[in-house]
Amino acid sequence: MIPASGGLCMFVLVNLKAYPCDPIEVATAAADVSDETGVRVAVAPQAAHLDAVAETGVETWAQHVSPVEHGSHTGSTLAEAAVDAGATGTLLNHSENRLKLADIDGSLDAADRADLETIVCANNPEQIAAAAALGPDAVAVEPPALIGTGTPVSKADPEIVTDAVSAAASVDESVDVLCGAGISTGEDVVSAGELGASGVLLASGVAKADDPRAALEDLVAPLE
Amino acid sequence: MIPASGGLCMFVLVNLKAYPCDPIEVATAAADVSDETGVRVAVAPQAAHLDAVAETGVETWAQHVSPVEHGSHTGSTLAEAAVDAGATGTLLNHSENRLKLADIDGSLDAADRADLETIVCANNPEQIAAAAALGPDAVAVEPPALIGTGTPVSKADPEIVTDAVSAAASVDESVDVLCGAGISTGEDVVSAGELGASGVLLASGVAKADDPRAALEDLVAPLE
Amino acid sequence: MIPASGGLCMFVLVNLKAYPCDPIEVATAAADVSDETGVRVAVAPQAAHLDAVAETGVETWAQHVSPVEHGSHTGSTLAEAAVDAGATGTLLNHSENRLKLADIDGSLDAADRADLETIVCANNPEQIAAAAALGPDAVAVEPPALIGTGTPVSKADPEIVTDAVSAAASVDESVDVLCGAGISTGEDVVSAGELGASGVLLASGVAKADDPRAALEDLVAPLE
Amino acid sequence: MIPASGGLCMFVLVNLKAYPCDPIEVATAAADVSDETGVRVAVAPQAAHLDAVAETGVETWAQHVSPVEHGSHTGSTLAEAAVDAGATGTLLNHSENRLKLADIDGSLDAADRADLETIVCANNPEQIAAAAALGPDAVAVEPPALIGTGTPVSKADPEIVTDAVSAAASVDESVDVLCGAGISTGEDVVSAGELGASGVLLASGVAKADDPRAALEDLVAPLE
Repeated sequence: MIPASGGLCMFVLVNLKAYPCDPIEVATAAADVSDETGVRVAVAPQAAHLDAVAETGVETWAQHVSPVEHGSHTGSTLAEAAVDAGATGTLLNHSENRLKLADIDGSLDAADRADLETIVCANNPEQIAAAAALGPDAVAVEPPALIGTGTPVSKADPEIVTDAVSAAASVDESVDVLCGAGISTGEDVVSAGELGASGVLLASGVAKADDPRAALEDLVAPLE
Repeated sequence: MIPASGGLCMFVLVNLKAYPCDPIEVATAAADVSDETGVRVAVAPQAAHLDAVAETGVETWAQHVSPVEHGSHTGSTLAEAAVDAGATGTLLNHSENRLKLADIDGSLDAADRADLETIVCANNPEQIAAAAALGPDAVAVEPPALIGTGTPVSKADPEIVTDAVSAAASVDESVDVLCGAGISTGEDVVSAGELGASGVLLASGVAKADDPRAALEDLVAPLE
Repeated sequence: MIPASGGLCMFVLVNLKAYPCDPIEVATAAADVSDETGVRVAVAPQAAHLDAVAETGVETWAQHVSPVEHGSHTGSTLAEAAVDAGATGTLLNHSENRLKLADIDGSLDAADRADLETIVCANNPEQIAAAAALGPDAVAVEPPALIGTGTPVSKADPEIVTDAVSAAASVDESVDVLCGAGISTGEDVVSAGELGASGVLLASGVAKADDPRAALEDLVAPLE
Repeated sequence: MIPASGGLCMFVLVNLKAYPCDPIEVATAAADVSDETGVRVAVAPQAAHLDAVAETGVETWAQHVSPVEHGSHTGSTLAEAAVDAGATGTLLNHSENRLKLADIDGSLDAADRADLETIVCANNPEQIAAAAALGPDAVAVEPPALIGTGTPVSKADPEIVTDAVSAAASVDESVDVLCGAGISTGEDVVSAGELGASGVLLASGVAKADDPRAALEDLVAPLE
């Protein structure tokens, strides 16, 4: 997940949730900002918007895939269907979509089968270690109390980030750690990186911004 | 839901579940068969395939929408996003995706807000009455034991269909009743109609057929 | 559910939830108050407290039973086990424990098999009609926004109670309607009865009272 | 969990699920067999039976506790209520009652607060490592395909047991590993111990036996 180039390399994943934003506007801005700066930026839209978002050329992630194979699973989000629509990665177990332990394992199997990169979210260092033990590409620590607050976890509770980094490393050193909740400025991204994170999850800071492109440019400016 | 023309008018909804079929092939066949015969035929693909399926011109349904409004709902299926991608209706509470009573109510509100037609599935006449009380456009009775068997509910258990029709009517006469589980031939569709159903849900009979177009033509032949 | 005697006859069910109260103290008070006044008062404790509560002689209800029969269901609440421990009724689908539509139906079957009286909770008149269609002994309307507020639903939103009474009656006239959320005084109970309710659900008003016996005496005083 | 005495020391936990057995008969037999042989034997009944089972003097476990503190949680199984009724430990995340990752963490917190010993079940070595990372007293590996078969996991798939032991140890060496699924004879218990397990979970082998006492005596005979 960490690019080879020097400097602070951070992955920026913009989760559009079910926000009333224009997914194409955000996706186009993200694609442009990523192209211009070399910073890896991806967008995770609603499943029904994957197709349209992927067509902008931005790196496209699913918000979730179901722990199922092809078969009789009405209403599921099949990993292969997300890939057909252009997804190359998926979030799992977001605090707004918490999964059973066995289903995180099953969804990771599904993602692996469909060749999707994976980030498993969790609330605290213990759950981060548990998530890391299931073998995802990365984990993301998002204290639920800070989600959507605008108070970055890297400031409000820096220890939870360093503890999460240690917890993941103690289980599997190859698993990257991202940091979510309250990230909205370039400074927050830098702080997250200094605490050991390899990237950030953010949502309202970009998706609800009056000018998503400007918000993204601000976010990645210190990383160029 | 019932067309005004004479004869037996049935709505045929093909649920693609998470089957390994080509959704575009089925959708194109369904669009053509519907055009050629005047029978109303719709296809319900994975959320990530809605866009591509709707582009074939077929009537497109979601397999599920979440009981949420715009907001912080990662991994949900927002009704508005399904509509953006071309859906005009949605299944709810399929036996493979059973919902809480309060969430069926919430999903119906979401569908109503986004102007999606609705079919709520249920297992037996009591649950059909309960579903009808929530005010969907239609309900569908699908005894779980018969799903995917090839034994049509209209033959295996005709009483469950007539009881479902009575149960729905006793609560709200404007709610149509569809019949699912095991439907695979035109004869099954006719039987369902004779028992009082206004349409059929089917899945493997078309989605897993070697020749989906031929399967659909056979299904609707007696309705022309 | 309605006693044969004249005057306003209301069933008072005290839900102890997971409150840090002494269930035996509340149960003993409820048994005494019921004996002294002739008002039907029952207590619904934690499953693990059913035995001890029933031994006080109070009418004892479960807070939930699972939609299962005898078998391999680790962690379930078997209706027969609740009966063994002294329960004679059960709440279902409380807003803190919302169930799938199919599971309300299954839990009602389980309760029926074990000879438990049933009250299915729901949030609004549409869901009340749906719950009534499943054939419980009673339904209870509890707008989630009012639970635990001390503002009685009978004052804050009297129309939701009368609408619930109409909705239940339109589906099945034999289903009683209880009224919950914010009930804490005898006046609230009388208001509920005047709106057509046959009883009340309450919780914190008694379980968190400094003197549960006095709280209960106040509640039932206007009913003697 | 492992007694200090020499020889093979195994914990035997009998899960009564929702079986139609007499919990007092099994509990009394388990208490007697444990007294006579010095082997640690516990019984996990329905929550509503905890009280009666604990009164036999047997070590009593809950089948589940909810991830909640005291408060408004109707239908939950409060850890403190299980303790009131005599439980000293609890199973969590049994394959018949799979929990969200965050809820296993929350239920472990609840059990810790109420001073309940804990065993978290899981299906495979990856999930065992994840469960161990959450800090329970023990984990139990139970391949779902073998539950209730009478084919012991120690014979059908010995590698899954040794892999689970390694997986747990790689995360936290203080976490014991139990082995479930298909255990019904003393020989199965010995095999499990030889593969590194510190105990066994069993259910139908005792609970459904014509003579539960004889079944237990057979099970523990090789451990005396």
